[in-house]
Amino acid sequence: MALIMKGAPVAQALTEDASARAAALTAKGVTPKLAILRVGERPEDISYEKGAMKRCAAAGVLVRQVTLPAWCTQTQLMAAVEALGEFPSVHGILMMRPLPVALDEQAARRALVPAKDMDGITDGSLAGVFTGSGEGFAPCTAQAVVELLKYYGVPLRGAHAVVAGRSLVVGRPAAMLLMAEGATVTICHSGTRDLAAETRRGDIVVAAIGKMGFFGPEHFAPGAAVVDVGIHADPDTGKLRGDVRFDEAEPVVGAITPVPGGLGAVTTAVLVHHVVEAAEKAAGLGK
Amino acid sequence: MALIMKGAPVAQALTEDASARAAALTAKGVTPKLAILRVGERPEDISYEKGAMKRCAAAGVLVRQVTLPAWCTQTQLMAAVEALGEFPSVHGILMMRPLPVALDEQAARRALVPAKDMDGITDGSLAGVFTGSGEGFAPCTAQAVVELLKYYGVPLRGAHAVVAGRSLVVGRPAAMLLMAEGATVTICHSGTRDLAAETRRGDIVVAAIGKMGFFGPEHFAPGAAVVDVGIHADPDTGKLRGDVRFDEAEPVVGAITPVPGGLGAVTTAVLVHHVVEAAEKAAGLGK
Repeated sequence: MALIMKGAPVAQALTEDASARAAALTAKGVTPKLAILRVGERPEDISYEKGAMKRCAAAGVLVRQVTLPAWCTQTQLMAAVEALGEFPSVHGILMMRPLPVALDEQAARRALVPAKDMDGITDGSLAGVFTGSGEGFAPCTAQAVVELLKYYGVPLRGAHAVVAGRSLVVGRPAAMLLMAEGATVTICHSGTRDLAAETRRGDIVVAAIGKMGFFGPEHFAPGAAVVDVGIHADPDTGKLRGDVRFDEAEPVVGAITPVPGGLGAVTTAVLVHHVVEAAEKAAGLGK
Repeated sequence: MALIMKGAPVAQALTEDASARAAALTAKGVTPKLAILRVGERPEDISYEKGAMKRCAAAGVLVRQVTLPAWCTQTQLMAAVEALGEFPSVHGILMMRPLPVALDEQAARRALVPAKDMDGITDGSLAGVFTGSGEGFAPCTAQAVVELLKYYGVPLRGAHAVVAGRSLVVGRPAAMLLMAEGATVTICHSGTRDLAAETRRGDIVVAAIGKMGFFGPEHFAPGAAVVDVGIHADPDTGKLRGDVRFDEAEPVVGAITPVPGGLGAVTTAVLVHHVVEAAEKAAGLGK
Protein backbone atom coordinates (compact mmCIF):
# COMPACT_ATOMS: atom_id res chain seq x y z
CA MET A 1 0.00 0.00 0.00
CA ALA A 2 1.66 3.15 -1.17
CA LEU A 3 1.45 6.43 0.67
CA ILE A 4 -0.91 8.61 -1.38
CA MET A 5 0.73 12.03 -1.47
CA LYS A 6 -2.30 14.30 -1.79
CA GLY A 7 -1.69 17.90 -2.64
CA ALA A 8 -4.30 19.49 -0.38
CA PRO A 9 -2.46 19.27 2.96
CA VAL A 10 0.78 20.50 1.36
CA ALA A 11 -1.07 23.41 -0.21
CA GLN A 12 -2.75 24.15 3.11
CA ALA A 13 0.54 24.23 5.00
CA LEU A 14 2.08 26.56 2.42
CA THR A 15 -1.01 28.76 2.45
CA GLU A 16 -1.03 28.98 6.25
CA ASP A 17 2.57 30.13 6.23
CA ALA A 18 1.87 32.63 3.44
CA SER A 19 -1.22 33.83 5.27
CA ALA A 20 0.64 34.53 8.52
CA ARG A 21 3.35 36.40 6.68
CA ALA A 22 0.82 38.32 4.55
CA ALA A 23 -0.98 39.37 7.74
CA ALA A 24 2.28 40.60 9.24
CA LEU A 25 2.93 42.62 6.08
CA THR A 26 -0.60 44.01 6.04
CA ALA A 27 -0.15 45.10 9.66
CA LYS A 28 2.84 47.10 8.43
CA GLY A 29 0.71 48.69 5.71
CA VAL A 30 1.86 46.52 2.79
CA THR A 31 -0.67 44.01 1.49
CA PRO A 32 0.87 41.55 -0.98
CA LYS A 33 -0.69 41.86 -4.42
CA LEU A 34 -0.53 39.59 -7.46
CA ALA A 35 -1.32 40.83 -10.95
CA ILE A 36 -2.64 38.16 -13.28
CA LEU A 37 -2.13 39.13 -16.89
CA ARG A 38 -4.25 37.12 -19.27
CA VAL A 39 -4.57 37.56 -23.04
CA GLY A 40 -7.76 36.08 -24.47
CA GLU A 41 -10.19 33.62 -22.93
CA ARG A 42 -8.53 30.20 -23.04
CA PRO A 43 -10.51 27.90 -20.73
CA GLU A 44 -7.30 26.49 -19.15
CA ASP A 45 -6.12 30.01 -18.31
CA ILE A 46 -9.47 30.99 -16.83
CA SER A 47 -9.57 27.81 -14.77
CA TYR A 48 -6.02 28.33 -13.45
CA GLU A 49 -6.79 31.98 -12.75
CA LYS A 50 -9.84 31.02 -10.67
CA GLY A 51 -7.78 28.58 -8.62
CA ALA A 52 -5.06 31.15 -8.06
CA MET A 53 -7.58 33.81 -7.00
CA LYS A 54 -9.22 31.46 -4.52
CA ARG A 55 -5.84 30.56 -3.05
CA CYS A 56 -4.82 34.24 -2.87
CA ALA A 57 -8.05 35.10 -1.06
CA ALA A 58 -7.36 32.32 1.46
CA ALA A 59 -3.94 33.80 2.18
CA GLY A 60 -4.96 37.45 2.33
CA VAL A 61 -3.19 38.27 -0.91
CA LEU A 62 -4.82 40.78 -3.25
CA VAL A 63 -5.28 40.09 -6.95
CA ARG A 64 -5.43 42.54 -9.79
CA GLN A 65 -6.79 40.99 -12.97
CA VAL A 66 -5.52 42.50 -16.19
CA THR A 67 -7.18 40.99 -19.22
CA LEU A 68 -6.36 41.87 -22.78
CA PRO A 69 -8.37 40.71 -25.78
CA ALA A 70 -6.85 37.87 -27.83
CA TRP A 71 -6.45 40.34 -30.73
CA CYS A 72 -4.43 42.89 -28.71
CA THR A 73 -1.27 44.32 -30.22
CA GLN A 74 2.28 43.66 -29.05
CA THR A 75 2.45 47.32 -28.03
CA GLN A 76 -0.56 46.92 -25.76
CA LEU A 77 0.88 43.76 -24.23
CA MET A 78 4.29 45.36 -23.61
CA ALA A 79 2.65 48.44 -22.10
CA ALA A 80 0.70 46.23 -19.68
CA VAL A 81 3.78 44.22 -18.65
CA GLU A 82 5.85 47.37 -18.18
CA ALA A 83 3.15 49.23 -16.26
CA LEU A 84 2.67 46.30 -13.87
CA GLY A 85 6.43 46.16 -13.40
CA GLU A 86 6.41 49.80 -12.31
CA PHE A 87 3.40 49.80 -9.97
CA PRO A 88 4.87 49.65 -6.46
CA SER A 89 1.64 48.14 -5.11
CA VAL A 90 1.95 45.08 -7.38
CA HIS A 91 4.49 42.65 -5.94
CA GLY A 92 4.17 39.80 -8.38
CA ILE A 93 3.05 39.22 -11.95
CA LEU A 94 1.70 36.01 -13.42
CA MET A 95 1.54 36.15 -17.20
CA MET A 96 -0.63 33.31 -18.51
CA ARG A 97 1.03 31.36 -21.27
CA PRO A 98 1.17 30.40 -24.03
CA LEU A 99 0.23 33.76 -25.50
CA PRO A 100 -1.70 33.91 -28.79
CA VAL A 101 0.76 33.04 -31.57
CA ALA A 102 0.62 36.51 -33.13
CA LEU A 103 2.34 37.92 -30.01
CA ASP A 104 6.06 37.84 -29.24
CA GLU A 105 6.20 35.96 -25.97
CA GLN A 106 9.95 36.29 -25.65
CA ALA A 107 9.78 40.08 -25.82
CA ALA A 108 7.08 40.07 -23.15
CA ARG A 109 9.19 37.81 -20.93
CA ARG A 110 12.14 40.16 -21.35
CA ALA A 111 10.04 43.12 -20.28
CA LEU A 112 9.10 41.35 -17.05
CA VAL A 113 11.03 42.42 -13.93
CA PRO A 114 12.68 39.28 -12.42
CA ALA A 115 11.79 40.49 -8.91
CA LYS A 116 8.09 40.28 -9.88
CA ASP A 117 8.39 37.14 -12.02
CA MET A 118 6.24 34.74 -9.97
CA ASP A 119 6.55 31.71 -12.25
CA GLY A 120 10.23 31.63 -13.19
CA ILE A 121 9.88 32.65 -16.84
CA THR A 122 12.55 35.36 -17.03
CA ASP A 123 16.22 34.72 -17.77
CA GLY A 124 17.03 36.17 -14.36
CA SER A 125 14.85 33.63 -12.56
CA LEU A 126 16.06 30.72 -14.69
CA ALA A 127 19.69 31.69 -14.10
CA GLY A 128 18.86 31.81 -10.39
CA VAL A 129 17.48 28.27 -10.53
CA PHE A 130 20.48 27.04 -12.52
CA THR A 131 23.11 28.69 -10.35
CA GLY A 132 21.26 28.24 -7.06
CA SER A 133 21.77 31.93 -6.27
CA GLY A 134 18.25 32.29 -4.91
CA GLU A 135 17.56 35.22 -7.23
CA GLY A 136 14.17 35.50 -8.85
CA PHE A 137 11.59 32.74 -8.41
CA ALA A 138 11.56 29.14 -9.58
CA PRO A 139 8.77 27.94 -11.87
CA CYS A 140 5.90 27.13 -9.51
CA THR A 141 5.29 23.57 -10.73
CA ALA A 142 8.97 22.61 -10.38
CA GLN A 143 9.11 24.03 -6.88
CA ALA A 144 5.82 22.32 -6.01
CA VAL A 145 7.48 18.96 -6.73
CA VAL A 146 10.13 19.66 -4.10
CA GLU A 147 7.67 21.13 -1.55
CA LEU A 148 5.45 18.07 -1.86
CA LEU A 149 8.30 15.60 -1.40
CA LYS A 150 9.60 17.54 1.61
CA TYR A 151 6.14 17.71 3.20
CA TYR A 152 5.80 13.93 3.02
CA GLY A 153 9.26 13.43 4.45
CA VAL A 154 10.73 11.80 1.35
CA PRO A 155 14.53 11.94 1.83
CA LEU A 156 16.16 14.07 -0.86
CA ARG A 157 19.79 14.27 0.33
CA GLY A 158 21.68 11.37 -1.22
CA ALA A 159 18.61 10.11 -3.07
CA HIS A 160 18.75 9.29 -6.76
CA ALA A 161 16.04 11.36 -8.43
CA VAL A 162 15.08 10.65 -12.02
CA VAL A 163 13.28 13.47 -13.81
CA ALA A 164 11.48 12.32 -16.94
CA GLY A 165 10.98 15.41 -19.07
CA ARG A 166 13.26 18.38 -19.75
CA SER A 167 10.86 21.30 -20.14
CA LEU A 168 11.75 24.71 -18.72
CA VAL A 169 8.49 24.72 -16.78
CA VAL A 170 9.09 21.47 -14.89
CA GLY A 171 11.82 19.03 -15.88
CA ARG A 172 14.96 21.13 -15.99
CA PRO A 173 14.18 23.41 -13.03
CA ALA A 174 12.91 20.47 -10.92
CA ALA A 175 16.22 18.68 -11.60
CA MET A 176 18.19 21.71 -10.41
CA LEU A 177 16.04 22.20 -7.30
CA LEU A 178 16.33 18.50 -6.38
CA MET A 179 20.09 18.68 -6.89
CA ALA A 180 20.25 21.74 -4.65
CA GLU A 181 18.57 19.59 -1.96
CA GLY A 182 21.39 17.06 -2.28
CA ALA A 183 19.89 14.53 -4.69
CA THR A 184 21.84 12.89 -7.49
CA VAL A 185 19.75 13.69 -10.54
CA THR A 186 19.24 12.03 -13.91
CA ILE A 187 17.34 13.98 -16.56
CA CYS A 188 15.58 11.80 -19.13
CA HIS A 189 13.77 12.90 -22.27
CA SER A 190 12.37 11.76 -25.59
CA GLY A 191 15.85 10.73 -26.74
CA THR A 192 16.55 8.50 -23.73
CA ARG A 193 17.36 4.97 -24.91
CA ASP A 194 15.72 2.86 -22.21
CA LEU A 195 13.53 5.12 -20.13
CA ALA A 196 12.19 2.32 -17.90
CA ALA A 197 15.73 1.22 -17.04
CA GLU A 198 16.52 4.78 -15.98
CA THR A 199 13.36 5.45 -13.97
CA ARG A 200 13.63 2.05 -12.22
CA ARG A 201 16.86 3.37 -10.68
CA GLY A 202 15.10 6.32 -9.07
CA ASP A 203 14.36 6.56 -5.38
CA ILE A 204 12.29 9.46 -6.66
CA VAL A 205 10.71 9.71 -10.10
CA VAL A 206 9.22 12.92 -11.47
CA ALA A 207 6.90 11.95 -14.33
CA ALA A 208 6.65 15.00 -16.56
CA ILE A 209 6.65 13.93 -20.18
CA GLY A 210 3.10 15.02 -20.94
CA LYS A 211 1.76 11.66 -22.21
CA MET A 212 -1.36 10.33 -20.54
CA GLY A 213 -0.87 6.99 -18.80
CA PHE A 214 2.63 6.51 -20.17
CA PHE A 215 4.21 5.24 -16.95
CA GLY A 216 3.24 1.89 -15.42
CA PRO A 217 4.62 -0.43 -12.74
CA GLU A 218 7.43 -1.49 -15.09
CA HIS A 219 8.90 2.01 -14.73
CA PHE A 220 9.32 2.07 -10.96
CA ALA A 221 11.48 0.43 -8.33
CA PRO A 222 9.58 -1.07 -5.40
CA GLY A 223 9.18 1.64 -2.81
CA ALA A 224 9.98 4.58 -5.09
CA ALA A 225 8.32 7.97 -4.53
CA VAL A 226 6.51 9.06 -7.69
CA VAL A 227 5.37 12.61 -8.46
CA ASP A 228 2.97 12.75 -11.38
CA VAL A 229 3.09 16.15 -13.08
CA GLY A 230 0.78 15.27 -15.98
CA ILE A 231 -2.81 16.45 -16.21
CA HIS A 232 -4.83 15.16 -19.15
CA ALA A 233 -8.54 14.89 -19.82
CA ASP A 234 -9.16 11.26 -20.78
CA PRO A 235 -11.00 11.40 -24.13
CA ASP A 236 -12.87 8.15 -23.29
CA THR A 237 -14.12 8.98 -19.81
CA GLY A 238 -13.66 12.74 -19.59
CA LYS A 239 -11.88 12.23 -16.28
CA LEU A 240 -8.53 13.79 -15.41
CA ARG A 241 -5.53 11.49 -15.57
CA GLY A 242 -1.79 11.89 -15.17
CA ASP A 243 1.32 10.63 -16.95
CA VAL A 244 1.21 7.59 -14.63
CA ARG A 245 -1.30 4.69 -14.71
CA PHE A 246 -2.07 5.23 -11.04
CA ASP A 247 -4.02 2.05 -10.36
CA GLU A 248 -1.30 -0.16 -11.79
CA ALA A 249 1.65 1.69 -10.28
CA GLU A 250 0.27 2.25 -6.79
CA PRO A 251 0.74 -1.35 -5.54
CA VAL A 252 4.42 -1.27 -6.52
CA VAL A 253 5.65 2.13 -5.41
CA GLY A 254 6.19 3.49 -1.92
CA ALA A 255 4.50 6.83 -2.41
CA ILE A 256 2.63 8.46 -5.28
CA THR A 257 0.64 11.60 -6.06
CA PRO A 258 -2.91 11.14 -7.32
CA VAL A 259 -4.33 12.95 -10.38
CA PRO A 260 -6.48 14.89 -9.77
CA GLY A 261 -5.79 15.89 -6.18
CA GLY A 262 -2.02 15.93 -6.43
CA LEU A 263 0.44 18.54 -7.55
CA GLY A 264 -2.02 21.08 -8.98
CA ALA A 265 -3.10 22.58 -5.64
CA VAL A 266 0.52 22.75 -4.48
CA THR A 267 1.45 24.74 -7.59
CA THR A 268 -1.02 27.55 -6.88
CA ALA A 269 0.01 27.55 -3.21
CA VAL A 270 3.64 28.00 -4.28
CA LEU A 271 2.51 30.88 -6.49
CA VAL A 272 0.85 32.63 -3.55
CA HIS A 273 3.92 31.99 -1.42
CA HIS A 274 6.04 33.65 -4.09
CA VAL A 275 3.83 36.75 -4.00
CA VAL A 276 4.28 37.04 -0.24
CA GLU A 277 8.04 36.54 -0.55
CA ALA A 278 8.20 39.20 -3.25
CA ALA A 279 6.23 41.61 -1.05
CA GLU A 280 8.58 40.89 1.85
CA LYS A 281 11.60 41.60 -0.33
CA ALA A 282 10.04 44.79 -1.69
CA ALA A 283 9.34 45.90 1.90
CA GLY A 284 12.94 45.17 2.84
CA LEU A 285 11.91 42.22 5.01
CA GLY A 286 12.37 38.48 4.58
CA LYS A 287 15.45 36.76 3.33
CA MET B 1 43.97 -0.13 -25.78
CA ALA B 2 41.94 2.96 -25.33
CA LEU B 3 41.76 5.77 -27.84
CA ILE B 4 43.81 8.61 -26.36
CA MET B 5 41.77 11.74 -26.98
CA LYS B 6 44.48 14.37 -27.18
CA GLY B 7 43.42 17.99 -27.12
CA ALA B 8 45.85 19.36 -29.70
CA PRO B 9 44.10 18.21 -32.90
CA VAL B 10 40.72 19.35 -31.55
CA ALA B 11 42.18 22.74 -30.66
CA GLN B 12 43.78 22.94 -34.09
CA ALA B 13 40.55 22.20 -35.91
CA LEU B 14 38.71 24.83 -33.87
CA THR B 15 41.49 27.34 -34.42
CA GLU B 16 41.52 26.74 -38.17
CA ASP B 17 37.81 27.41 -38.34
CA ALA B 18 38.18 30.51 -36.15
CA SER B 19 41.10 31.66 -38.26
CA ALA B 20 39.23 31.42 -41.57
CA ARG B 21 36.28 33.30 -40.11
CA ALA B 22 38.53 35.93 -38.49
CA ALA B 23 40.23 36.49 -41.86
CA ALA B 24 36.86 36.96 -43.54
CA LEU B 25 35.93 39.51 -40.89
CA THR B 26 39.27 41.30 -41.17
CA ALA B 27 38.73 41.52 -44.94
CA LYS B 28 35.49 43.36 -44.11
CA GLY B 29 37.40 45.74 -41.84
CA VAL B 30 36.49 44.12 -38.52
CA THR B 31 39.28 42.29 -36.74
CA PRO B 32 38.03 40.24 -33.78
CA LYS B 33 39.48 41.46 -30.53
CA LEU B 34 39.57 39.90 -27.07
CA ALA B 35 40.15 41.96 -23.94
CA ILE B 36 41.76 40.02 -21.09
CA LEU B 37 41.08 41.67 -17.77
CA ARG B 38 43.39 40.50 -15.03
CA VAL B 39 43.62 41.76 -11.46
CA GLY B 40 46.94 41.05 -9.80
CA GLU B 41 49.66 38.61 -10.80
CA ARG B 42 48.43 35.12 -9.94
CA PRO B 43 50.70 32.63 -11.73
CA GLU B 44 47.71 30.54 -12.92
CA ASP B 45 46.14 33.63 -14.47
CA ILE B 46 49.36 34.66 -16.18
CA SER B 47 49.87 31.16 -17.52
CA TYR B 48 46.31 30.95 -18.86
CA GLU B 49 46.64 34.43 -20.34
CA LYS B 50 49.80 33.43 -22.21
CA GLY B 51 48.09 30.36 -23.65
CA ALA B 52 45.09 32.41 -24.71
CA MET B 53 47.28 35.06 -26.36
CA LYS B 54 49.21 32.45 -28.31
CA ARG B 55 46.00 30.86 -29.49
CA CYS B 56 44.53 34.26 -30.44
CA ALA B 57 47.66 35.09 -32.45
CA ALA B 58 47.35 31.78 -34.29
CA ALA B 59 43.79 32.63 -35.27
CA GLY B 60 44.37 36.27 -36.22
CA VAL B 61 42.45 37.54 -33.20
CA LEU B 62 43.73 40.69 -31.48
CA VAL B 63 44.23 40.86 -27.74
CA ARG B 64 44.03 43.86 -25.49
CA GLN B 65 45.52 43.20 -22.06
CA VAL B 66 44.05 45.20 -19.22
CA THR B 67 45.84 44.59 -15.96
CA LEU B 68 44.87 46.11 -12.65
CA PRO B 69 46.94 45.88 -9.49
CA ALA B 70 45.77 43.37 -6.87
CA TRP B 71 44.99 46.31 -4.56
CA CYS B 72 42.74 48.12 -7.04
CA THR B 73 39.39 49.45 -5.85
CA GLN B 74 35.97 48.13 -6.79
CA THR B 75 35.36 51.44 -8.57
CA GLN B 76 38.44 50.93 -10.76
CA LEU B 77 37.41 47.36 -11.54
CA MET B 78 33.86 48.38 -12.44
CA ALA B 79 35.13 51.23 -14.60
CA ALA B 80 37.36 48.80 -16.52
CA VAL B 81 34.56 46.27 -17.06
CA GLU B 82 32.13 48.96 -18.16
CA ALA B 83 34.60 50.67 -20.48
CA LEU B 84 35.48 47.39 -22.20
CA GLY B 85 31.77 46.68 -22.56
CA GLU B 86 31.37 49.97 -24.40
CA PHE B 87 34.39 49.85 -26.75
CA PRO B 88 32.99 48.76 -30.12
CA SER B 89 36.42 47.41 -31.17
CA VAL B 90 36.44 44.91 -28.28
CA HIS B 91 34.23 41.93 -29.13
CA GLY B 92 34.86 39.72 -26.14
CA ILE B 93 36.00 40.08 -22.54
CA LEU B 94 37.72 37.44 -20.44
CA MET B 95 37.79 38.40 -16.78
CA MET B 96 40.29 36.19 -14.95
CA ARG B 97 38.82 34.70 -11.78
CA PRO B 98 38.77 34.35 -8.89
CA LEU B 99 39.28 38.04 -8.18
CA PRO B 100 41.11 39.12 -5.03
CA VAL B 101 38.74 38.56 -2.09
CA ALA B 102 38.44 42.27 -1.31
CA LEU B 103 36.61 42.78 -4.63
CA ASP B 104 32.94 42.07 -5.31
CA GLU B 105 33.08 39.52 -8.12
CA GLN B 106 29.31 39.32 -8.43
CA ALA B 107 29.03 43.05 -9.07
CA ALA B 108 31.73 42.79 -11.72
CA ARG B 109 29.95 39.88 -13.39
CA ARG B 110 26.73 41.89 -13.42
CA ALA B 111 28.48 44.77 -15.15
CA LEU B 112 29.67 42.48 -17.93
CA VAL B 113 27.68 42.60 -21.18
CA PRO B 114 26.45 39.05 -21.97
CA ALA B 115 27.23 39.57 -25.68
CA LYS B 116 30.92 40.03 -24.73
CA ASP B 117 30.97 37.42 -21.96
CA MET B 118 33.40 34.91 -23.47
CA ASP B 119 33.44 32.42 -20.58
CA GLY B 120 29.80 32.12 -19.59
CA ILE B 121 29.96 33.91 -16.25
CA THR B 122 26.98 36.27 -16.62
CA ASP B 123 23.42 35.37 -15.70
CA GLY B 124 22.49 35.94 -19.33
CA SER B 125 24.97 33.35 -20.58
CA LEU B 126 24.10 30.86 -17.86
CA ALA B 127 20.40 31.25 -18.59
CA GLY B 128 21.26 30.65 -22.26
CA VAL B 129 23.04 27.41 -21.38
CA PHE B 130 20.19 26.30 -19.13
CA THR B 131 17.40 27.11 -21.57
CA GLY B 132 19.33 26.20 -24.71
CA SER B 133 18.39 29.54 -26.25
CA GLY B 134 21.86 30.04 -27.71
CA GLU B 135 22.16 33.44 -26.07
CA GLY B 136 25.48 34.48 -24.61
CA PHE B 137 28.36 32.00 -24.50
CA ALA B 138 28.82 28.77 -22.58
CA PRO B 139 31.71 28.43 -20.12
CA CYS B 140 34.71 27.48 -22.30
CA THR B 141 35.72 24.37 -20.35
CA ALA B 142 32.20 22.94 -20.43
CA GLN B 143 31.93 23.53 -24.16
CA ALA B 144 35.41 22.08 -24.68
CA VAL B 145 34.16 18.77 -23.24
CA VAL B 146 31.48 18.58 -25.93
CA GLU B 147 33.77 19.75 -28.76
CA LEU B 148 36.34 17.11 -27.84
CA LEU B 149 33.81 14.27 -27.71
CA LYS B 150 32.34 15.36 -31.04
CA TYR B 151 35.76 15.60 -32.68
CA TYR B 152 36.56 12.02 -31.70
CA GLY B 153 33.19 10.78 -32.93
CA VAL B 154 31.89 9.71 -29.53
CA PRO B 155 28.13 9.28 -29.99
CA LEU B 156 26.22 11.73 -27.80
CA ARG B 157 22.62 11.21 -28.94
CA GLY B 158 21.05 8.51 -26.79
CA ALA B 159 24.22 8.06 -24.75
CA HIS B 160 24.14 8.06 -20.97
CA ALA B 161 26.56 10.75 -19.81
CA VAL B 162 27.54 10.94 -16.17
CA VAL B 163 28.95 14.28 -15.06
CA ALA B 164 30.85 14.07 -11.78
CA GLY B 165 30.94 17.58 -10.36
CA ARG B 166 28.32 20.31 -10.31
CA SER B 167 30.34 23.53 -10.58
CA LEU B 168 29.06 26.41 -12.69
CA VAL B 169 32.31 26.39 -14.65
CA VAL B 170 32.14 22.76 -15.79
CA GLY B 171 29.70 20.30 -14.24
CA ARG B 172 26.34 21.98 -14.55
CA PRO B 173 26.89 23.64 -17.94
CA ALA B 174 28.53 20.49 -19.39
CA ALA B 175 25.46 18.51 -18.30
CA MET B 176 23.15 20.96 -20.09
CA LEU B 177 25.26 21.00 -23.26
CA LEU B 178 25.43 17.19 -23.36
CA MET B 179 21.67 17.03 -22.85
CA ALA B 180 21.19 19.50 -25.70
CA GLU B 181 23.15 17.03 -27.87
CA GLY B 182 20.64 14.29 -26.99
CA ALA B 183 22.40 12.55 -24.10
CA THR B 184 20.63 11.33 -20.99
CA VAL B 185 22.56 13.02 -18.22
CA THR B 186 23.21 12.19 -14.58
CA ILE B 187 24.83 14.88 -12.42
CA CYS B 188 26.81 13.53 -9.47
CA HIS B 189 28.44 15.50 -6.66
CA SER B 190 29.94 15.28 -3.20
CA GLY B 191 26.59 14.12 -1.81
CA THR B 192 26.18 11.24 -4.26
CA ARG B 193 25.79 7.96 -2.34
CA ASP B 194 27.71 5.54 -4.53
CA LEU B 195 29.65 7.53 -7.10
CA ALA B 196 31.34 4.50 -8.68
CA ALA B 197 27.96 2.82 -9.23
CA GLU B 198 26.77 5.96 -11.02
CA THR B 199 29.86 6.54 -13.17
CA ARG B 200 30.00 2.85 -14.15
CA ARG B 201 26.66 3.38 -15.90
CA GLY B 202 28.09 6.10 -18.11
CA ASP B 203 28.84 5.64 -21.79
CA ILE B 204 30.54 8.98 -21.19
CA VAL B 205 32.02 10.14 -17.90
CA VAL B 206 33.11 13.72 -17.29
CA ALA B 207 35.48 13.69 -14.31
CA ALA B 208 35.34 17.17 -12.79
CA ILE B 209 35.40 16.92 -9.02
CA GLY B 210 38.81 18.55 -8.56
CA LYS B 211 40.53 15.75 -6.62
CA MET B 212 43.82 14.47 -8.01
CA GLY B 213 43.76 10.79 -8.97
CA PHE B 214 40.31 10.20 -7.50
CA PHE B 215 38.94 8.08 -10.34
CA GLY B 216 40.32 4.63 -11.13
CA PRO B 217 39.27 1.64 -13.22
CA GLU B 218 36.58 0.77 -10.67
CA HIS B 219 34.72 3.91 -11.74
CA PHE B 220 34.31 3.10 -15.43
CA ALA B 221 32.41 0.68 -17.61
CA PRO B 222 34.54 -1.18 -20.17
CA GLY B 223 34.61 0.96 -23.30
CA ALA B 224 33.43 4.18 -21.70
CA ALA B 225 34.67 7.55 -23.00
CA VAL B 226 36.29 9.51 -20.18
CA VAL B 227 37.00 13.24 -20.21
CA ASP B 228 39.32 14.31 -17.41
CA VAL B 229 38.78 17.95 -16.48
CA GLY B 230 41.14 18.00 -13.50
CA ILE B 231 44.56 19.63 -13.58
CA HIS B 232 46.70 19.24 -10.46
CA ALA B 233 50.41 19.58 -9.80
CA ASP B 234 51.46 16.34 -8.11
CA PRO B 235 53.22 17.41 -4.89
CA ASP B 236 55.48 14.30 -5.07
CA THR B 237 56.66 14.52 -8.65
CA GLY B 238 55.75 18.07 -9.65
CA LYS B 239 54.07 16.64 -12.75
CA LEU B 240 50.57 17.57 -13.87
CA ARG B 241 47.87 15.03 -13.17
CA GLY B 242 44.12 14.86 -13.59
CA ASP B 243 41.17 13.65 -11.54
CA VAL B 244 41.67 10.22 -13.15
CA ARG B 245 44.51 7.73 -12.49
CA PHE B 246 45.24 7.56 -16.20
CA ASP B 247 47.59 4.55 -16.21
CA GLU B 248 45.14 2.39 -14.30
CA ALA B 249 42.00 3.52 -16.11
CA GLU B 250 43.35 3.47 -19.67
CA PRO B 251 43.33 -0.35 -20.11
CA VAL B 252 39.64 -0.50 -19.10
CA VAL B 253 38.04 2.40 -20.92
CA GLY B 254 37.37 2.89 -24.60
CA ALA B 255 38.66 6.44 -24.88
CA ILE B 256 40.26 8.88 -22.46
CA THR B 257 41.87 12.33 -22.41
CA PRO B 258 45.44 12.59 -21.12
CA VAL B 259 46.58 15.17 -18.53
CA PRO B 260 48.50 17.20 -19.57
CA GLY B 261 47.72 17.28 -23.29
CA GLY B 262 43.96 16.92 -22.99
CA LEU B 263 41.18 19.40 -22.44
CA GLY B 264 43.28 22.48 -21.63
CA ALA B 265 44.21 23.35 -25.21
CA VAL B 266 40.63 22.82 -26.33
CA THR B 267 39.42 25.30 -23.72
CA THR B 268 41.54 28.18 -25.04
CA ALA B 269 40.56 27.25 -28.60
CA VAL B 270 36.89 27.49 -27.62
CA LEU B 271 37.63 30.89 -26.08
CA VAL B 272 39.10 32.15 -29.36
CA HIS B 273 36.16 30.70 -31.25
CA HIS B 274 33.82 32.62 -28.98
CA VAL B 275 35.63 35.88 -29.77
CA VAL B 276 35.19 35.29 -33.50
CA GLU B 277 31.52 34.42 -33.04
CA ALA B 278 31.01 37.56 -30.95
CA ALA B 279 32.68 39.66 -33.65
CA GLU B 280 30.48 38.04 -36.30
CA LYS B 281 27.38 38.83 -34.28
CA ALA B 282 28.53 42.41 -33.66
CA ALA B 283 29.11 42.80 -37.41
CA GLY B 284 25.64 41.43 -38.13
CA LEU B 285 27.08 38.24 -39.63
CA GLY B 286 27.08 34.67 -38.38
CA LYS B 287 24.22 32.83 -36.77
